[in-house]
Amino acid sequence: MTATLPTGLSARARVPASSANLGPGFDCLGMALGLYDEIVVTVAASGLDIRVEGEGADDVPWGPSHLVVRAIERGLESAGVWADGLSVVCRNSIPHSRGLGSSASAVVGGLAAANALAAKVSADLELSTAQMVQLASEFEGHPDNASASVLGGAVVSWSQEAGPPEGPRTFAATRLEVHPDVRATVFIPRERSSTVHTRGLLPELVPHRDAAFNAGRTGLAVVALTSHPELLMAATEDRLHQPYRASALPLTTRWVRSIRSRGYAATVSGAGPTVLALSTEPLPHDLIESARDEGITVLELDVAEGVVVD
Amino acid sequence: MTATLPTGLSARARVPASSANLGPGFDCLGMALGLYDEIVVTVAASGLDIRVEGEGADDVPWGPSHLVVRAIERGLESAGVWADGLSVVCRNSIPHSRGLGSSASAVVGGLAAANALAAKVSADLELSTAQMVQLASEFEGHPDNASASVLGGAVVSWSQEAGPPEGPRTFAATRLEVHPDVRATVFIPRERSSTVHTRGLLPELVPHRDAAFNAGRTGLAVVALTSHPELLMAATEDRLHQPYRASALPLTTRWVRSIRSRGYAATVSGAGPTVLALSTEPLPHDLIESARDEGITVLELDVAEGVVVD
Repeated sequence: MTATLPTGLSARARVPASSANLGPGFDCLGMALGLYDEIVVTVAASGLDIRVEGEGADDVPWGPSHLVVRAIERGLESAGVWADGLSVVCRNSIPHSRGLGSSASAVVGGLAAANALAAKVSADLELSTAQMVQLASEFEGHPDNASASVLGGAVVSWSQEAGPPEGPRTFAATRLEVHPDVRATVFIPRERSSTVHTRGLLPELVPHRDAAFNAGRTGLAVVALTSHPELLMAATEDRLHQPYRASALPLTTRWVRSIRSRGYAATVSGAGPTVLALSTEPLPHDLIESARDEGITVLELDVAEGVVVD
Repeated sequence: MTATLPTGLSARARVPASSANLGPGFDCLGMALGLYDEIVVTVAASGLDIRVEGEGADDVPWGPSHLVVRAIERGLESAGVWADGLSVVCRNSIPHSRGLGSSASAVVGGLAAANALAAKVSADLELSTAQMVQLASEFEGHPDNASASVLGGAVVSWSQEAGPPEGPRTFAATRLEVHPDVRATVFIPRERSSTVHTRGLLPELVPHRDAAFNAGRTGLAVVALTSHPELLMAATEDRLHQPYRASALPLTTRWVRSIRSRGYAATVSGAGPTVLALSTEPLPHDLIESARDEGITVLELDVAEGVVVD
C-alpha cells in the first residue's frame, strides 16, 4: 500500500560534486568534492513547480523530465510513497558538463530529498546508502560519480552483471577515507564536454600490458589516497582513457601535463574538461594565476562528505 | 674500493613464499605466505660449495648459475663487498614451479643473505628495502612476487619504464597491512606449471571493458584485503589472466570454481597451478578433504612478514 505524503512536508538535500575516472580508475574510482547543489522539495496539493537558481538555471529543460524531478519521483516510488504535487527548488553551484558529476549530484540530491520525505512519514521507509547507490547509478549507467556523492570521501565502485551485457546490473561502492594531507584543486575551463562524445573516443580493444598497467595503478591509487599521498604521482598514471581523449581536450591535456611537470598529481576529472590536481601542499601561486589568465576557474575544494538531508 | 669479507663470516636469511597475480591484480598484487626457504651463506677461503635440502634438492642445477648463488653474488656486488669463496646451504620448503614464487624467494633470500654479510662488515653497506625490491625484481622481470617476499604482508608493486619498452625499468612496491581476519589457504597440485608457457597464453589485446573491470576490481582488492574482507569475493574477480589460462590449467580452474561456488574467494596463485583461497573463516572440512583425495596438498598459511636475516 502506498502512503500519501501530507501537503507542506518538506525536505532539503545538500549534495556534493564529484570527480570520476580518477587517474587510472576509469569507471571505478571517484571522489566527492566540496562544491554543493541544494535541492528543497515540498509536497504540494497538486502540480509540479520547479525553480532552478545558479548553475544551469538557463539551460536545463523544465518540466517532469528534469533530472532532479525524475530522481525525486524514483525516490518516492522506491520508498513506496506518493505525493499529489511537488514544489522543487534547486540551488546549484556545480557547473554543468564540466566533468564534476553535476548530473549524478542532481540524481543523488533528488533521491535523497525524496528519501528524506519518506523517512519523515516512517523511518522504515528510508533507503539504505547501498540502495541509494544502486538507484542513482541506474540513472547514470555507471556508479563512480553517484556513489561518491552518496558516500562522500573517495569511492571504489563496481557493477555486477547479471546475465548478458544488456541485462540488469547491480552497482555497489565502498568508501575510502582520504588521507587528511590530500588537497584537491580543480581547474574548470569555460568550455563544456560531452561524456557521450568523449566515451566514443575510447577503443574497443587495448593492449593487455596497458590493462595490467591500469590495474596496478588503480590498486596503487587506493593506497596513495588513503595512506601514502607521496605516491600520488605514480598512482594517477593512466593508459585507458586520458591518452585516447587527449586530442579532443587540448586545453585540459595541456594543463594536466603542465601541473604534472611541476611535480603535482593531476588527472582529467570525469570526461573533462575539468582537471583535478591532488597534492599535499597548495599548488604554486604562479601556476594558478596563469590558469586564471586563460579564463580557467581554479578552486581548492575539500574532500566532501556524502549527501546530507534535513 | 671493494671490501673483502672475512672467512667464516656467516648470515642466514629466512624468506617467505608468495602469491602473485592475486585475483584481478595481474603483475601488481602479491602476498607473502608463511612457507619459508632458509639460506645460510658462509664466507670461505675459496671456491663455491652449495648444498640444497628439501624442495628442489634433486632438480635445481648446481654450480655458479644456481639462482641463489647468482643473487648472492649480485647482493655482494651491490653492497660493494667481495668474498674469496662461499659455502651456501639452502633449506627449502617452498615447492618449485607451483605458483608460490619459489624463484623470487630464492633471489630475495640470496640478496638478503649477501646484504646481511655486508652489513656485518659495515652498516653503511646495507641495502634499503627499496633497493632490495629493485634488485630482486630485475632478476624476475616483474616485481610482485619479489616485493612480497621482501616487504611481507600484501603488496602493490609497479614498474616505471624509462624510455623504450626494452630499456631499463625501475621497480617499486608498497606494503598493505592485511586485515587480521583474512586467512590464506593454498591448494597445491602435484603437477608443475611454467610461467613462460602460461604467459604465452595471454592475448596481445583485450576489451577495454575488461581492462576497466580489472582496474576497478584491483582497487577493490586493496580495500578488501586491508579493511573490508567481506568484499573479497567481488574483489578477486578477474578478466585479464585466469580466463585465458583456464584451459591450460584444468585442475586449477576446477578448484577455483569449486571453492568460489561455496562462497569463498579463490584465485590462481601466480601462473598456477596452486590455488589461493582467501576467507575470514576456515574452509569447510569436506572441501579440503576432497582436494586431498585428489592428491592436492592443502595448507592454511599465515600472511607472512618479509625476509628476515640474522
